[in-house]
Amino acid sequence: MAERYEIVQKALLQMLEEKKYATLRDVLVTMNPSDIAALFADLEEKQIPLMFRLLPKEQAAETFVEMDPEEQALLIRGFSDNELKEVLDELYVDDAADIVEEMPANVVKRILKTADPEMRSSINQILRYPENSAGSIMTTEYVSLRPTMTVEEAILRIRRQGVDKETIYTCYVTRPDRKLIGIVTVKDLLLAEDDETAIEDLMTTNLISVTTHSDQEDVAKMFSKYNFLALPVVDGEDRMVGIVTFDDAMDVMEEETTEDMEIMAGITPSEKTYLKSTPWDLFGHRIPWLMLLMVSATFTGMIISSFEEALGMLPALTAFIPMLMDTGGNSGSQSSVTVIRALSLDELSLGDLGRVLWKEIRTAVLCALCLGAVCFLKVLLVDRLLMGNESVSLLVALVVCLTLALTVIIAKVVGCVLPMAAKAMGADPAVMASPFITTIVDALSLLVYFLFAKTLLGV
Amino acid sequence: MAERYEIVQKALLQMLEEKKYATLRDVLVTMNPSDIAALFADLEEKQIPLMFRLLPKEQAAETFVEMDPEEQALLIRGFSDNELKEVLDELYVDDAADIVEEMPANVVKRILKTADPEMRSSINQILRYPENSAGSIMTTEYVSLRPTMTVEEAILRIRRQGVDKETIYTCYVTRPDRKLIGIVTVKDLLLAEDDETAIEDLMTTNLISVTTHSDQEDVAKMFSKYNFLALPVVDGEDRMVGIVTFDDAMDVMEEETTEDMEIMAGITPSEKTYLKSTPWDLFGHRIPWLMLLMVSATFTGMIISSFEEALGMLPALTAFIPMLMDTGGNSGSQSSVTVIRALSLDELSLGDLGRVLWKEIRTAVLCALCLGAVCFLKVLLVDRLLMGNESVSLLVALVVCLTLALTVIIAKVVGCVLPMAAKAMGADPAVMASPFITTIVDALSLLVYFLFAKTLLGV
Repeated sequence: MAERYEIVQKALLQMLEEKKYATLRDVLVTMNPSDIAALFADLEEKQIPLMFRLLPKEQAAETFVEMDPEEQALLIRGFSDNELKEVLDELYVDDAADIVEEMPANVVKRILKTADPEMRSSINQILRYPENSAGSIMTTEYVSLRPTMTVEEAILRIRRQGVDKETIYTCYVTRPDRKLIGIVTVKDLLLAEDDETAIEDLMTTNLISVTTHSDQEDVAKMFSKYNFLALPVVDGEDRMVGIVTFDDAMDVMEEETTEDMEIMAGITPSEKTYLKSTPWDLFGHRIPWLMLLMVSATFTGMIISSFEEALGMLPALTAFIPMLMDTGGNSGSQSSVTVIRALSLDELSLGDLGRVLWKEIRTAVLCALCLGAVCFLKVLLVDRLLMGNESVSLLVALVVCLTLALTVIIAKVVGCVLPMAAKAMGADPAVMASPFITTIVDALSLLVYFLFAKTLLGV
Repeated sequence: MAERYEIVQKALLQMLEEKKYATLRDVLVTMNPSDIAALFADLEEKQIPLMFRLLPKEQAAETFVEMDPEEQALLIRGFSDNELKEVLDELYVDDAADIVEEMPANVVKRILKTADPEMRSSINQILRYPENSAGSIMTTEYVSLRPTMTVEEAILRIRRQGVDKETIYTCYVTRPDRKLIGIVTVKDLLLAEDDETAIEDLMTTNLISVTTHSDQEDVAKMFSKYNFLALPVVDGEDRMVGIVTFDDAMDVMEEETTEDMEIMAGITPSEKTYLKSTPWDLFGHRIPWLMLLMVSATFTGMIISSFEEALGMLPALTAFIPMLMDTGGNSGSQSSVTVIRALSLDELSLGDLGRVLWKEIRTAVLCALCLGAVCFLKVLLVDRLLMGNESVSLLVALVVCLTLALTVIIAKVVGCVLPMAAKAMGADPAVMASPFITTIVDALSLLVYFLFAKTLLGV
């Protein structure tokens, strides 16, 4: 598929260079706006306005929405006031608000000056809501109906108003004070047996709504739970102010997942895509965690220093340190990632801590027995016999495999408890993933190692 | 919100115990099927059929779809043939196929025997497609129109057939041989100015479709790219066989993300939720990777062994090993996770390797300079002055911080190259995350460490 796309792309760029504008336009009108936007990303700066002006009005607006902020800014700077107004008139309010958020101040000023008064006030309203709230991703364009309308009247209203609404398929039944009292779908309307049925007899009153200040992540979760096309957004007095549509929820899901993964890898989340980030951006998002974790590792170093004498007496012990630390870290990461994901999908709640702990302990014992046994054999066969290291005695093998077993158990307990503790304290559980767990487990595993060595080997 | 739900839940369970069935039913009919299904998960086995029978037919079927396979199997075993048929008749074909896939053989047999012949053949058709293909998640119930119909005829057809279709909002225009030639939405139909307009003049012919064998992950990506409500599924001859709807795409997105995270943490992906997995399940999914990585760590141990003498001469060197290994591992994980996520969102393709490498190297140099400088100061101030370790000379500090700097650079290069190499070889890039990178980087960082120590310190 990707290949076919590249062939089309090449052909179109060639037409542009050869100034075959009519042909180019004929091809462009058959394409999906998302694909056209992807095409723009590969154009040179001066080609962008040229190609954009070939698009018919509606398609131009749809393509504009899908473009990168840099290209949008470039286009807007080149637009006449008239051209800008034409594009703005075709935009949905939530898309316009998204664009305004990304633009430099002078471009924003021009957009707000050019937009018609109604859109300007809607954009301003959406921009007032906190980032990541339902209010900031909603659109104020929806179809509202009155409870006393008949099916026929409702359909007529949709036909008259629908062209400007982001979705017409879910309609919201409100009282004159804008209080939301029911929902009716176009399917309900079309399948109603009698055109004279009143909307209030047809509507669902089992309302599921969010408020303007609901977290966008919670809103996205409701979409995947209930399979809605759109979700109504109400204010503190249950008055209808807008809707969130499923496509925005999907974008939020993707964004939040990326953010979780970044946090889990010890990266401060960024809004820029990888290829758009400069090395300085990447550096800025990565160095704080690297620094913090490097400094934390000082404690691990201090533990080793304080057992320097023991290591001096039995240098063979040093060789097992990386294996013990890595296996501990991996065991802990497995548990923490599983728990973090289950928490974020709401499969787990804080009340489940007891069950989780009991499950992890039993899993850990199984893993510990299995790894310990294999490790014991490996140490004796490989390190002692194969590599002929005489100082690796039976007792040393025992110390190593006991440490390993205990480390795995400690790691799994730490790995499942810390994310839940973070959540209990209102922090993001994703912070308690691999890098953090590894640092803690490293220190603990070394302590266990040297204590066993002291007790059993007397070093 | 979760709290309010628990209060409702408690009240409902109490009604059930006090046998206030009429009241319970009155409350249940106002609830969303997803919420009722969540309620069932907390019931005792014998209460499940009791409460299920209180639900009206349509709501019962919708709730059934949202329940866990265990509870579905329990209910089916208790159903009379008549009850089973009633539920099956209300199900969409793709949901029925999903349920059949999860049931034990004897239950499947009963379902297929009870379903009406049309549904039976559709279920069988869907089950024939490979797991994770578009065919396996599609439904065969969609509205098809003919190009010569008028808008009025089309709306009439939707009104007649729509009740059994999963979505009526996107209709598919096909020729008599089922070849897909266009798409028309209910919005297009409702907003058409003339009821006599022919469908072929209204339909979009810019078709985006998938084939029955397309990977479900690619299908889900198309939804988030194009914001479709539904996507047509065609066979090898472009004949329409079904549709995938956005709610199924959202489920796939969630599933695939969980799978990616599991693989990135060194866990074999599982279809069971955490709380449903037994310790044996968890053990089985975790031990292969732990074992593999433990054995790989042998190489790291061998490197240390071969430098045993050097460490014996300057024991202070040992204390820095964990810090060097951890910082290397963390640096590598950051790059690998960033690249893995960008690959899975199609923000990166294999052709970008050069740009990625160049970006990572510059980022790595910045991180290396910054970490190296802080590390140098830390070693001198903390290890030498504060802890009074005389053997930590200026030269030792230099060796440690040079190793650190080089390790960070190596780690970032390894971290970005390996996922792209995996992709190039057709493997899942997610495998090349933290556990794998850590093991490789550990060995490399130790090699660098000892080589620097040998050269600069002459040990």
